[in-house]
Amino acid sequence: MSQPDFSANLKPHPQADGAATLAQERGQSDFDTNAISKHLFGDKYLERQARILKIVTGEKIFSKTNQANLSRPDRYKLGLARGKKLRQLMNEYKWDDDDFLMAEWLVDDVLPHHLNISLFKSAILEQCNEEQRNFWYPKLQAWEIIGAYAQTELGHGSNVRGLEATATWDQKTKDFVLHSPTLTASKWWNGTLGRTATHAVFVAQLRIPKKGGSGGFESYGPHPFIIRVRDEKTHKPLESIIVGDIGPKYGYPAMDNAYMLLNQHRVPHEALLSRYATVNRETGEYVKPKNTGAMYGQLTRGRSQIVMNARLVLARAVTVAVRYLSIRRQFRDQDADDQSALEEQVLNYSTVQIRVLPLLAATFALHYSGAAMQKLYERTRGANAQKESDLNELQELHFTSAGLKSLTTEMAADGIETCRRAMGGHGYGGGTGLIQLNADYLSKPTVEGDNWMITQQVARYLLKKVKELSTSRSNANSSRLDASLIRFRERSRSPPQFSDLSDDLSILEAFEWRTAFLAFEAYESREVKKLPWNSLLVEFRNLSRAHTQAMLVVYFYEGLRSLDSLPSSTKTVLWDLFRLFSLSAIEKDAWQFQRSGAIATKALDQLPKEILTLMQRIRPHAVRIVDSFTLPDYLLNSDLGRSDGRVYESLFHRAHVENPLNRITFNPRYWEDELVMGSRDDGHILSKL
Amino acid sequence: MSQPDFSANLKPHPQADGAATLAQERGQSDFDTNAISKHLFGDKYLERQARILKIVTGEKIFSKTNQANLSRPDRYKLGLARGKKLRQLMNEYKWDDDDFLMAEWLVDDVLPHHLNISLFKSAILEQCNEEQRNFWYPKLQAWEIIGAYAQTELGHGSNVRGLEATATWDQKTKDFVLHSPTLTASKWWNGTLGRTATHAVFVAQLRIPKKGGSGGFESYGPHPFIIRVRDEKTHKPLESIIVGDIGPKYGYPAMDNAYMLLNQHRVPHEALLSRYATVNRETGEYVKPKNTGAMYGQLTRGRSQIVMNARLVLARAVTVAVRYLSIRRQFRDQDADDQSALEEQVLNYSTVQIRVLPLLAATFALHYSGAAMQKLYERTRGANAQKESDLNELQELHFTSAGLKSLTTEMAADGIETCRRAMGGHGYGGGTGLIQLNADYLSKPTVEGDNWMITQQVARYLLKKVKELSTSRSNANSSRLDASLIRFRERSRSPPQFSDLSDDLSILEAFEWRTAFLAFEAYESREVKKLPWNSLLVEFRNLSRAHTQAMLVVYFYEGLRSLDSLPSSTKTVLWDLFRLFSLSAIEKDAWQFQRSGAIATKALDQLPKEILTLMQRIRPHAVRIVDSFTLPDYLLNSDLGRSDGRVYESLFHRAHVENPLNRITFNPRYWEDELVMGSRDDGHILSKL
Repeated sequence: MSQPDFSANLKPHPQADGAATLAQERGQSDFDTNAISKHLFGDKYLERQARILKIVTGEKIFSKTNQANLSRPDRYKLGLARGKKLRQLMNEYKWDDDDFLMAEWLVDDVLPHHLNISLFKSAILEQCNEEQRNFWYPKLQAWEIIGAYAQTELGHGSNVRGLEATATWDQKTKDFVLHSPTLTASKWWNGTLGRTATHAVFVAQLRIPKKGGSGGFESYGPHPFIIRVRDEKTHKPLESIIVGDIGPKYGYPAMDNAYMLLNQHRVPHEALLSRYATVNRETGEYVKPKNTGAMYGQLTRGRSQIVMNARLVLARAVTVAVRYLSIRRQFRDQDADDQSALEEQVLNYSTVQIRVLPLLAATFALHYSGAAMQKLYERTRGANAQKESDLNELQELHFTSAGLKSLTTEMAADGIETCRRAMGGHGYGGGTGLIQLNADYLSKPTVEGDNWMITQQVARYLLKKVKELSTSRSNANSSRLDASLIRFRERSRSPPQFSDLSDDLSILEAFEWRTAFLAFEAYESREVKKLPWNSLLVEFRNLSRAHTQAMLVVYFYEGLRSLDSLPSSTKTVLWDLFRLFSLSAIEKDAWQFQRSGAIATKALDQLPKEILTLMQRIRPHAVRIVDSFTLPDYLLNSDLGRSDGRVYESLFHRAHVENPLNRITFNPRYWEDELVMGSRDDGHILSKL
Repeated sequence: MSQPDFSANLKPHPQADGAATLAQERGQSDFDTNAISKHLFGDKYLERQARILKIVTGEKIFSKTNQANLSRPDRYKLGLARGKKLRQLMNEYKWDDDDFLMAEWLVDDVLPHHLNISLFKSAILEQCNEEQRNFWYPKLQAWEIIGAYAQTELGHGSNVRGLEATATWDQKTKDFVLHSPTLTASKWWNGTLGRTATHAVFVAQLRIPKKGGSGGFESYGPHPFIIRVRDEKTHKPLESIIVGDIGPKYGYPAMDNAYMLLNQHRVPHEALLSRYATVNRETGEYVKPKNTGAMYGQLTRGRSQIVMNARLVLARAVTVAVRYLSIRRQFRDQDADDQSALEEQVLNYSTVQIRVLPLLAATFALHYSGAAMQKLYERTRGANAQKESDLNELQELHFTSAGLKSLTTEMAADGIETCRRAMGGHGYGGGTGLIQLNADYLSKPTVEGDNWMITQQVARYLLKKVKELSTSRSNANSSRLDASLIRFRERSRSPPQFSDLSDDLSILEAFEWRTAFLAFEAYESREVKKLPWNSLLVEFRNLSRAHTQAMLVVYFYEGLRSLDSLPSSTKTVLWDLFRLFSLSAIEKDAWQFQRSGAIATKALDQLPKEILTLMQRIRPHAVRIVDSFTLPDYLLNSDLGRSDGRVYESLFHRAHVENPLNRITFNPRYWEDELVMGSRDDGHILSKL
């Protein structure tokens, strides 16, 4: 393999010249890639990406060439080495936290140290009193300690109140006794804790002896404690702690998700993170949480990050799909006269377009939604300049953003797979560069609030809204949601039945009408007919989806409306994407739009044709649109999606030059146990089982 | 870890006692598990499963404990060793081919030798002339040679006529010259060929010099040649061959999918497999294929196997989900008064039921459809007893079974993921036992005919049918499809608008009416309006789906109708499953059923309630139903889905006892390059990159 062989002289068939195809694709569109790139990401982000990219691609440890061939233990080791190296680079180049996160994103591994800079850090910042924060924060920032966040248990995830771990106050010794009373009380899934962490925030049910010495305990619910997990020198677990990695999962091979049990493990009084609540050291009295106020902003910020991340993940899958499917040709057009013509570009088939192009459009819907949430958060941060309508919107977003988490992570997770299948045979190979992204991202629909379960929160808020609005009128501080519910209440007997699919405002109103229709229907079921909550969960989920789709459509629309300095032809493409996104969503739920009277039946019948037309309009710009996502080839790590279009050369190189399996000659004869030819190994793989 | 520690004394929380829960689940239902098990699989299959299971679980090499931790090269090695061992066992126990395949299924790896017993074997059986078959078949059966099937290329998959490899007849030397003229002509994806095979069937464009010596060649399209790939002694590729493994894919880590290039590689005249066509050795004349007759039966058989396999795959995912979700409890019922009650079994939530129970029902739909196809194949095999109506049905199935491949592999692939997500957090872990199944099965929607592309075949047949039927009437030999198209033609102005969702015959007819509606609509678009083929692909796909769903519903119905000796309470459950399957399918496409007039609007509005009721009726039987699939724990390899319900004990054991990562203490300090604590390894992972 190290010798040049006859494959060195071979080129792809002329029709498979990807570089020429992408040049042609880029030449046929005047979509302003650079302007959109700046518009989507901003100069600062793009500068950071370019700067960090140069540094990480200069280090061998970040090479992705062989990582898919490694064993799980080696993948963890590689992650550990990469984490260390990134931190060394951080010191060397004086990176800030965002620089570090950019590096981790480009390297495309969630590294073993990750929880120290994410959940552990937030816990220290948000749950410590000042003294605790002053003590711990510098240590974690310097990576003197590596922290994890141990909340979820083997037996309880979403239901935090059901956690089994206990923290019992011992008034005599002034200690808390942390304990895992059962096997299901074992902490579980906690990242960084399995092998890496030195410390953890341990969440346990706080129990304080009852007054009067009569025995028994009063329970105060889950509280956070900071504990040392492993010895400072040996890095072995402390004696009363059992901790380890839970083993291979779908994705995140470099991350050490943990199990952890504590056996009557004593920690001092100051281990309880005491910003909101504490136990009086002398009297053993529980000091109640202050009224913490609604932290509307924080949640909105976190959820906007989820949406923005879903956008990037989807952008990545769509970039690979659009580029490859432009280059890939298969079959000639059935209706073509000239049978000597090149085969058709696969992206020209409507069955391929209808899977990929709405996802291309969806990346923009996610972008404008995430951006609007960020802006709202920024606008409402300072004490000044807080309009009441902003605060209303923020509050509403706080309660309904569960729907955004649910829908957008589902869109991205499903979107990766849709793109993969659209790529046909080669979509199943390592050349997609999507295997690890796919496996990693599959966690999102179930973590941080299961996507189906949390839709109840949205429904609950909408039910409350319908109840409140039964008497009120729209006013200056009403949100769009309020106004749409009031509009529905007033006109429910004459539904709008919009029929002009090219009228964007009608589209917006149609989405909002559907939401209102479903909200009032749910209200009727629950509040009037008093049906069991459990019998309505599916209805609630549909309601949440409908409302969230309306939000995406509205944010998308408003994002485009506020555009200014872009060339008009580029704007036209963006508006086409808006329409494709909206009409595709309507088509998928056509029955709801019909049933609610939001859209006229005739218009629904026209949808397939309209969607086809929009796809034909967008198609010539597809490559330039994905170019505007500016995802580096190093990140994509994809033969199919590389920006220079050398798909087939790259696939062949990965197989013929890079694959370590091809350095071994095997012995396939079943009557000989030897596996590697001539090695007399006697089938030694057994020792690894 | 080898020492007992305090975790040895811990048990799960009492509410998490899976064994007790499953006992209760099994006690609350009288669904006749044993009878259904026999009904679904037959005694012969169950006997074989039990017999082979005992043998493979007795061999250490088939232990699945650590395989998810291995590197890709080691996974291939393990596969190679397993393949050899299975063949040794085959000799020892005198297994037939079905025994061998059962063993491979239970071991749950597609092994490196697999193509020798599948595609290579079929090619030898079907494409050889008698002499060739007599020569090659005994060799492959004895595994003296290991064969692969090299058809697909880097640049062409579905479009077989577009293959680039050439086979040029040299009249002087009486040789064929096999050649790969470009990089995209490289064979690609071909299983078993990468490292294992000694031989392959090589598919290439046959070219014969034009008569008259004027130069140039006549092309005859793709033909199969048998070639030796590797040296008999050294197992190194022959000199004019470049061959290797393409590297890691989504799944199939034990399989060596190949690339292969041939450089002016000469093979003798008899290398051309000559059952249907050959080249006259003396004159160089092409001898035309005989009229091969329509091989309706073979395709039907192959497709029935795909359906039956999809059934088992889905059964496996549903078994894991139903058992785990019965045992898993989370949150109390919102409406419950007693807040000290156990938390709710997750399978009781309607949002979980609506994802899992229709898939449970779908396994039966797939079963009866696959079984009906098998029966039809058997019935039409012999020369005797062939009713014309059977032959009609077989012909129809031949042309429409692409829709079954497309829909059922999609149902199974999506179904695994739906079950996984329904399991929440633990659904993302290795404890599901679904990770490799999921990754392997994702290939199915795109291989052996891309699921979207092949729906054109169904549409093309239905367009032809509509055309033919424009004048004919229903007669004794009409298929159900014919009859339903004629019915639609005659009554298209008065659609049935069925309103009784409990009337099974109406349900069947509603599905058929929808198909007919879409078929006539597509006919109008293509044949009357003459719209471009490419603009109709999405419509065609919808039509294929509709027709295929109708087939599944009809087969399911007919399968249940022919049931006899089952207890009536068990039959009732099966009929509920039929209804759940049908009504769920209608709900997902409610707009089509409304638009076509198949079902009345009011009835469509009632669907969610009907579905909820059916799910509540089926729920108590769920565990016993999945028990009837009789999938061995060894196959499932699932902590969550094990038949004894010891979910949490098993998860903990996998993590704490089995995970090799926990045998190593790491050094997390970023200022030290050492990775394994105390090893002074200086970060040696670099050498593996």
